[in-house]
Amino acid sequence: TFPFRVEELEAKAKEKMSKNAFGYTRSGGGGEETLRKNTASFEKYSILPQYLNDVSNVDTSIELFGHTYRHPFLLAPIGMLKTTHEEAELAVAKAAAKLDVPYIQSTVSSYAIEEVAEVSEGSPKWFQLYWSNNENISFNMVKRAEEAGYQAIVLTIDTTMFGWREEDMTNRFSPLKAGYGKANYITDSAFLSTLKQDDEASVVEEILQNIYHPKLSWKHVAELKKRTSLPVLLKGILHPTDARLAIENGVDGIIVSNHGGRQLDGVISSIDALPAVVEEVGGEVPILIDSGIRRGADVVKALALGADAVLLGRPYAYGLALAGQAGVEKVLTNFMQQTRSSLALAGASSVKAARNIHILKD
Amino acid sequence: TFPFRVEELEAKAKEKMSKNAFGYTRSGGGGEETLRKNTASFEKYSILPQYLNDVSNVDTSIELFGHTYRHPFLLAPIGMLKTTHEEAELAVAKAAAKLDVPYIQSTVSSYAIEEVAEVSEGSPKWFQLYWSNNENISFNMVKRAEEAGYQAIVLTIDTTMFGWREEDMTNRFSPLKAGYGKANYITDSAFLSTLKQDDEASVVEEILQNIYHPKLSWKHVAELKKRTSLPVLLKGILHPTDARLAIENGVDGIIVSNHGGRQLDGVISSIDALPAVVEEVGGEVPILIDSGIRRGADVVKALALGADAVLLGRPYAYGLALAGQAGVEKVLTNFMQQTRSSLALAGASSVKAARNIHILKD
Amino acid sequence: TFPFRVEELEAKAKEKMSKNAFGYTRSGGGGEETLRKNTASFEKYSILPQYLNDVSNVDTSIELFGHTYRHPFLLAPIGMLKTTHEEAELAVAKAAAKLDVPYIQSTVSSYAIEEVAEVSEGSPKWFQLYWSNNENISFNMVKRAEEAGYQAIVLTIDTTMFGWREEDMTNRFSPLKAGYGKANYITDSAFLSTLKQDDEASVVEEILQNIYHPKLSWKHVAELKKRTSLPVLLKGILHPTDARLAIENGVDGIIVSNHGGRQLDGVISSIDALPAVVEEVGGEVPILIDSGIRRGADVVKALALGADAVLLGRPYAYGLALAGQAGVEKVLTNFMQQTRSSLALAGASSVKAARNIHILKD
Amino acid sequence: TFPFRVEELEAKAKEKMSKNAFGYTRSGGGGEETLRKNTASFEKYSILPQYLNDVSNVDTSIELFGHTYRHPFLLAPIGMLKTTHEEAELAVAKAAAKLDVPYIQSTVSSYAIEEVAEVSEGSPKWFQLYWSNNENISFNMVKRAEEAGYQAIVLTIDTTMFGWREEDMTNRFSPLKAGYGKANYITDSAFLSTLKQDDEASVVEEILQNIYHPKLSWKHVAELKKRTSLPVLLKGILHPTDARLAIENGVDGIIVSNHGGRQLDGVISSIDALPAVVEEVGGEVPILIDSGIRRGADVVKALALGADAVLLGRPYAYGLALAGQAGVEKVLTNFMQQTRSSLALAGASSVKAARNIHILKD
Ligand SMILES: Cc1cc2nc3c(=O)[nH]c(=O)nc-3n(C[C@H](O)[C@H](O)[C@H](O)COP(=O)(O)O)c2cc1C
Ligand SMILES: Cc1cc2nc3c(=O)[nH]c(=O)nc-3n(C[C@H](O)[C@H](O)[C@H](O)COP(=O)(O)O)c2cc1C
Ligand SMILES: Cc1cc2nc3c(=O)[nH]c(=O)nc-3n(C[C@H](O)[C@H](O)[C@H](O)COP(=O)(O)O)c2cc1C
Ligand SMILES: Cc1cc2nc3c(=O)[nH]c(=O)nc-3n(C[C@H](O)[C@H](O)[C@H](O)COP(=O)(O)O)c2cc1C
Repeated sequence: TFPFRVEELEAKAKEKMSKNAFGYTRSGGGGEETLRKNTASFEKYSILPQYLNDVSNVDTSIELFGHTYRHPFLLAPIGMLKTTHEEAELAVAKAAAKLDVPYIQSTVSSYAIEEVAEVSEGSPKWFQLYWSNNENISFNMVKRAEEAGYQAIVLTIDTTMFGWREEDMTNRFSPLKAGYGKANYITDSAFLSTLKQDDEASVVEEILQNIYHPKLSWKHVAELKKRTSLPVLLKGILHPTDARLAIENGVDGIIVSNHGGRQLDGVISSIDALPAVVEEVGGEVPILIDSGIRRGADVVKALALGADAVLLGRPYAYGLALAGQAGVEKVLTNFMQQTRSSLALAGASSVKAARNIHILKD
Repeated sequence: TFPFRVEELEAKAKEKMSKNAFGYTRSGGGGEETLRKNTASFEKYSILPQYLNDVSNVDTSIELFGHTYRHPFLLAPIGMLKTTHEEAELAVAKAAAKLDVPYIQSTVSSYAIEEVAEVSEGSPKWFQLYWSNNENISFNMVKRAEEAGYQAIVLTIDTTMFGWREEDMTNRFSPLKAGYGKANYITDSAFLSTLKQDDEASVVEEILQNIYHPKLSWKHVAELKKRTSLPVLLKGILHPTDARLAIENGVDGIIVSNHGGRQLDGVISSIDALPAVVEEVGGEVPILIDSGIRRGADVVKALALGADAVLLGRPYAYGLALAGQAGVEKVLTNFMQQTRSSLALAGASSVKAARNIHILKD
Repeated sequence: TFPFRVEELEAKAKEKMSKNAFGYTRSGGGGEETLRKNTASFEKYSILPQYLNDVSNVDTSIELFGHTYRHPFLLAPIGMLKTTHEEAELAVAKAAAKLDVPYIQSTVSSYAIEEVAEVSEGSPKWFQLYWSNNENISFNMVKRAEEAGYQAIVLTIDTTMFGWREEDMTNRFSPLKAGYGKANYITDSAFLSTLKQDDEASVVEEILQNIYHPKLSWKHVAELKKRTSLPVLLKGILHPTDARLAIENGVDGIIVSNHGGRQLDGVISSIDALPAVVEEVGGEVPILIDSGIRRGADVVKALALGADAVLLGRPYAYGLALAGQAGVEKVLTNFMQQTRSSLALAGASSVKAARNIHILKD
Repeated sequence: TFPFRVEELEAKAKEKMSKNAFGYTRSGGGGEETLRKNTASFEKYSILPQYLNDVSNVDTSIELFGHTYRHPFLLAPIGMLKTTHEEAELAVAKAAAKLDVPYIQSTVSSYAIEEVAEVSEGSPKWFQLYWSNNENISFNMVKRAEEAGYQAIVLTIDTTMFGWREEDMTNRFSPLKAGYGKANYITDSAFLSTLKQDDEASVVEEILQNIYHPKLSWKHVAELKKRTSLPVLLKGILHPTDARLAIENGVDGIIVSNHGGRQLDGVISSIDALPAVVEEVGGEVPILIDSGIRRGADVVKALALGADAVLLGRPYAYGLALAGQAGVEKVLTNFMQQTRSSLALAGASSVKAARNIHILKD
């Protein structure tokens, strides 16, 4: 039977997955201080619910960039899902489509944009971009996403190089080198045009050359904005000053995130970073958040502290590991039910109203 | 031999009870953050006792709504006790009667109001109301409690729907569906009159339809006040604004509670919520508290922080599991002795004087 | 080989002692929250040492009530030591005498004042008084202590009745009822004169009648002051107001203590209570402290926060358990060396200078 | 395979080392409160990174006293390394030389200054001085270090006597008495000239006589400054007043350190002590820090809080234990890569820029 507890979900996924894949999925950067803080920090915040308001109609829907979504959560971009399940992003996209949850597909997917689009036609999808040093690849991928009907571009800014991941190093495992994340590249004309040799090793080498992009700066953001008509979000913002700069650079939305504690260890937990960003942004653009969301109460806390929506990460990857598409659906269904009843029990009849829930910090 | 330590009490109850019943009793909502905080929060408060005042006569009695009770605690409403012991609420009521502790009977009891009243004649009892969507049922139950000599009505406001209880879901256990909480319904004329079929399944279905009542609002509270001459308390208040609204709506008393962490996870611990409520209420109505009271020192802290009385919960259910009525009596006797000597050792000769005990928060 | 680590000392004592005796010695009141806080609280304070002052001569001596003692610690009163070792207080007194550490003998000793005095002639000793309801017993014991050359009277104010000790209750063990603490009574003419029958049971019963003395109040303190020329200290003060009252009642010294967490559970740790008492007292009388002192660094912290001396408790009882007098000596010798070098390494050349050590609280 | 995780590094070193050597290396003073705080305190500080600045060129170099070093870390003085590996300081110095990391050699080394200098010619080295009561030895060692081309003198001020090290006492292990730290003495003309007998026992006795130097005071610091043209740093400063006095006494640099928690237990963690020292010093002299640095994120935090460089301690000793020179190199290489990528991911292109990284304290 499919586990209800996220701790059990992880434990069962561990049994099912290869050591390498589980290690890659679970682990964080460095000493995993930030990974631990991501969940532990949520416990610093306590909800002060208010009762005796009719909550028989809870509207969990949100509106982002002109689209209405039925739930205040999206699926975070998780790359290289073939490490976890043969159907990988296809299964995830189908589950998301079925349950009307927007799916943010990663650049380093195991299936290409077009393949994902095909199995999930009509459902809301966003594309997460890892910048390529060869900018044409970046722009081309964005164009492909646009053409495939994706609704937004998420530029991840905290991964211009990979974090110091001790678990993967210990396992001597690099899913990128193992080819799990190449689908979007080998289907990309801009990428292929620069490829000298088309053997596996050259492909991987060329991806690595492109994905290591420490030069990334605000001018690329401005350039990206010019190249696409889709809303652009920055994923990885933790500092309020970066939020301000994002707005000044025309960015359409912000994702407060520390990449699930997988990049620089020792950085602040997302939930602790949220309030200052919310204050700085002052409602000018939507603010999403991820890293450490594990249950309905976390969603309530994030919304109450000013997020407009949250991204779910590892839990759905574990669902995928356990039971493919059906597993992802199960995880999502649980989240939906929890979120709905948590909002109601906190006294909020809508996501907007959740902003008024009183939170006390220890 | 009957355990003195509450931790051992729980451990022994676990051995004796069915997995389902123990899981149902012990567990909390969601990730059990609030359940943990309920007990852990008490440790944030330290007592600064004062000595060298004659404490040879400690008066532990309290007065509530014109009644004098011998101890500053009551038994919290715990439903469906047949999961735990065949004699269920009868055993608890008899123990409470014997030791002169007021017993708050739950709507979802395994024995009906009249059955409980019969075995505990003359002893103080209150009735806890879960609102029914069919208001006639609510009013009729209240009337029956009045007629049975109950002294107050406790309207629980934090359970308009059930919390997300992962342990019960994992066990696929719903005591309500299993029929453990139907006694008050199947003896209720208002309930029976609406029942289409009187088989078990229909009864359960009808209860579920009634007990899920997310429409509950302040206007029902006002209505309830009109329908009964008994004092009405609201159980589940955590936010000072709700306390203020309660007073404005004519409520006679407040129970600060998070339902033992069983409803919305992530909400504030009761003891952390207490001081702000006390300040807001300013003595206008009595304030009771539950959730996490495990020992005499907890009682002292709650009283010192402004509670007028406390409600005991799980510990007496474990006593019932271990030894029926005698077990409940043992738990109560221990609480009485601890509370008396704790008050004395803190330097307070009465419950009123306990309000002057100095508490330091970490 | 004798353990250096206090944790190992306790572990080895546990192996050697009877379950009852170890349980009695180790345990605290209620849920042992205060017992835990006593040691944990010390970790909240960090020393900011200063170097490069000549510390080749560290004067660890203190002066109290006209007497100079070589070390800034005394042995706390621990009753009924025959539970632990046949030689009990005799062994402790001899060890203390040998190392010139003042020993505070308990009322409920296993050997009488005169027996202890005989084996430790000329060494500094204080007498700890548990008030007797029959005041003549109290006054007579004080007189006996005076006659035996004891230098001060310590009136314990936090034990007018026993705490709620779950470990002893679980073990069904009462050392007092088992006769371990009767020596000072059965040698006391005032006690004997009131005894109706002189069998064991009557003796114990009479002790219990006397030692339960919840009437104890400031007027007894004033009376005691009149009856003895020795300095009188109050042991158990935690509240600054009590410290002020003590001074107003002519008390000569204060011992900040929570009785090692053995009385009312949930009270503040001694070290957390110390600063406010120090501020209130303003140097008018000496302030001693106990409860949770385990190592040299704890002594430094207590002195830096304003204590004039500390009392050692459980560690020496464990030393006694392991190796009788030699064990106590070993524990004391370790404390001496640690204290001396800790003072030096903190930059203080004397106990007085330790007051200037800077402490940072978390 | 060589471990990436520092926890695993320690665990494997434990397997390889003798119980005595591992105990000596791992342990701290007293109850190891400070040892624990050294690492735990780092978790109180969270990094608020800023992105989207070109970080393709991270300059990790620092300048100290006119010398440029390629990395912002040095190797802390660790004495008596023959306990750990036959090649001891020679292996460490060679690894440091190969990777261009300055090595601070301890007074109590297993190989002499000249031996170390010979195997690591041309590489940056500093000399750590334990004062000798016979000042001529101190001055002679400093002269030897100067002649061997060492670039700075580090006077350790927190070890005028050894801490209370329970692990070593339990093991009855003193590496100094076992002769592991004598190399610099038996090659020192000033030391040899005072030696009455030249057998092992006399040598050890004479070292002990010299190394216990509680008289050390500011006047020795002033004297030392006169005797050498090299910059002099004080290692062990935790109090801002001592930092001020250091500057007033002409000291050239400060090392905030608690000796890895090995001296007085209960003292503040280095990272908690750093900010006040930085504020007091106001940039007048460089500030280095050690104690608890375990990963790249710790380096970033220390630099952001105002340190100019950090010292690595135990981790390299464990590297030495596991694989001699190669092990030290591995540990250093890991630190270099982590530090470089951590700076980049925190948004700093240089060590100077790291000062602007925003840190949030819990
Ligand atoms: C296995 C794995 C792969 C990930 N891959 C990507 C990715 O390709 N692009 C990206 O922007 N974020 C990636 N992330 C980060 C997630 O988008 C998200 O920020 C993170 O999972 C949130 O933390 P949580 O999983 O602890 O809730 C990945 C996370 C995991 C666990
Ligand atoms: C098994 C169980 C059943 C409960 N049933 C009810 C109920 O029917 N009505 C109600 O208002 N509260 C109910 N409660 C909540 C208690 O009244 C009380 O708020 C809670 O037990 C206090 O927390 P504590 O047990 O941790 O002290 C129940 C609690 C438990 C443990
Ligand atoms: C076994 C035991 C017996 C004690 N008996 C007495 C006593 O007879 N009188 C008294 O004033 N305090 C008594 N105390 C309390 C000690 O004097 C002291 O306050 C306490 O031990 C300090 O805490 P610590 O042992 O944790 O350091 C006793 C403590 C213990 C552990
Ligand atoms: C085994 C060992 C030996 C040490 N010997 C010396 C020494 O001879 N001189 C000195 O100044 N510090 C000495 N130290 C302290 C280190 O220089 C440094 O301050 C400490 O190791 C930093 O703490 P960390 O190892 O936890 O990072 C020693 C430390 C260890 C672990």
